[in-house]
Amino acid sequence: MAIDIGGTKIAGALVHPDGAMTAVTRRPTPRGTDADGVMAAVAEVVADLARDPLWARAVRCGIGSAGPVDTSRGTVSPVNIGAWREFPVQERTAAELAARGARIPVVLAGDGVAMTAAEHWLGAARGHANALCMVVSTGVGGGLILNNQLHPGPTGNAGHIGHISVAFDGERCVCGGHGCVESLASGTAIARWALAQGWTGPDPTAAGVAASAAAGDPVALAAFDRAGRALAAAIAATATLVETDIAVIGGGVAASGDTLFEPVRRHLASYAALSFVKDLQVVPAALGTHAGLIGAAAAAMMLLPTA
Amino acid sequence: MAIDIGGTKIAGALVHPDGAMTAVTRRPTPRGTDADGVMAAVAEVVADLARDPLWARAVRCGIGSAGPVDTSRGTVSPVNIGAWREFPVQERTAAELAARGARIPVVLAGDGVAMTAAEHWLGAARGHANALCMVVSTGVGGGLILNNQLHPGPTGNAGHIGHISVAFDGERCVCGGHGCVESLASGTAIARWALAQGWTGPDPTAAGVAASAAAGDPVALAAFDRAGRALAAAIAATATLVETDIAVIGGGVAASGDTLFEPVRRHLASYAALSFVKDLQVVPAALGTHAGLIGAAAAAMMLLPTA
Repeated sequence: MAIDIGGTKIAGALVHPDGAMTAVTRRPTPRGTDADGVMAAVAEVVADLARDPLWARAVRCGIGSAGPVDTSRGTVSPVNIGAWREFPVQERTAAELAARGARIPVVLAGDGVAMTAAEHWLGAARGHANALCMVVSTGVGGGLILNNQLHPGPTGNAGHIGHISVAFDGERCVCGGHGCVESLASGTAIARWALAQGWTGPDPTAAGVAASAAAGDPVALAAFDRAGRALAAAIAATATLVETDIAVIGGGVAASGDTLFEPVRRHLASYAALSFVKDLQVVPAALGTHAGLIGAAAAAMMLLPTA
Repeated sequence: MAIDIGGTKIAGALVHPDGAMTAVTRRPTPRGTDADGVMAAVAEVVADLARDPLWARAVRCGIGSAGPVDTSRGTVSPVNIGAWREFPVQERTAAELAARGARIPVVLAGDGVAMTAAEHWLGAARGHANALCMVVSTGVGGGLILNNQLHPGPTGNAGHIGHISVAFDGERCVCGGHGCVESLASGTAIARWALAQGWTGPDPTAAGVAASAAAGDPVALAAFDRAGRALAAAIAATATLVETDIAVIGGGVAASGDTLFEPVRRHLASYAALSFVKDLQVVPAALGTHAGLIGAAAAAMMLLPTA
């Protein structure tokens, strides 16, 4: 059983051992309500799943959620769901399942960790014992596979690559840090930098900058070059620290394809120079629309292996 | 059984389950000789150990070596032992042991990983399930404990924190990278930067700069501030990536005490701002002279647990 909680929608599905999904359902994430109001949407998703004939055969439930999360306490405080602050989503979801007869283990994972589990199970990181998976979108998130295991860390936040500094004397980030990858390479940062450099276009977003870059606009190309360089430094740092041999990048900015991947790969050699990291690959994520649900299920399989 | 191979000496000991050592012996690392000439010193160390009455009771052997290492092949190519390039030290040492009747498992670890095992077993990282241990000296090295296990990575080079970039637009490092921690925070880098800024002193090394800093010299203080800031960014990046909750720093530069630790701790808040890393501690290494031998033994215990 998979539940995927984001700022715009709450989705659910029953995920089969081969990754096929049934009973896929979703609700818009409630706005202008309190914590219980948001939880009511989760309960509706659970109720939808409970109507499926396979409901009784579910053996575990994974919840993937926008972060920050605290898996040591089963709580979430998603930046884009203001009504939930340290909300005990794991316990509350387990209660909803139990009320419908499903007394199964429930595990919580941040969305970056869930995406990583998905890419390792069925996507671009399959077969890699040590992998970094990233989402480059409005923000930058990620997760790690180490020794063929998901490495969420004690609170579920490991792999938080958007908030490592690759410019220790750089500008202040919203997190309070300085020179964070997210402040240099997120879609927001790409668009902001291009606009500050005088770029103009009909669509003042990273997608608009990507379109200009693909058409050869030098400022737009420079914006992606700078983002790609920051990502390359962070990917190399991760490989140097934990010996990951592949970096998988998904998310809206990665959808620009070679506009992003070409500078990331070109700059990688400037940061991953030691022998044990020089074969590091960077590839696009393989899972699309349902990566969140697949990831929630994959995290449950990896984190609750004996269920 | 522990063997510690460095650029100046090759040491050996029998290490007891409580960390006590007997039969401690050492040879200068041979210079101006070939690969077999260096190996002869290892063989002499092994011969010394074999004369100890406890020799026959050794159950495993750990080799800690200056790097780079390739533990997947059991080879070492120490920067400061030019005669050894991809030298099969693990196999050759196992043969020396077997020739003296000790048919026991032998494991190889880089010196940063070995130091980490030592600090986790008996030093400042004891009781921490997730720790970064570092040596800040002529170079900068390190290792990781994750989930109470040593994390050497597939080739034994994980934790190589000296060569992660904290300044993606920074100067070229000897490794080929840009803005590496080692190029900003090693003893060599501290002395070089201070001298370039006009600092003068009787001892043109990091120790000399530290003495000036302790006496209030502003350029010397600035040199340690800059190094401390680079280390803080790297320590925070590691914690953000893998959820380490402590960083242990040893090595010659750490011997300057608060001259190094004060700026590292002060700057940490500027890089470790997210909730799950804000309680990160930075402490001095606890093991001194024999950390290399303790580390080789600790690595053997952690990596050959069933021996």
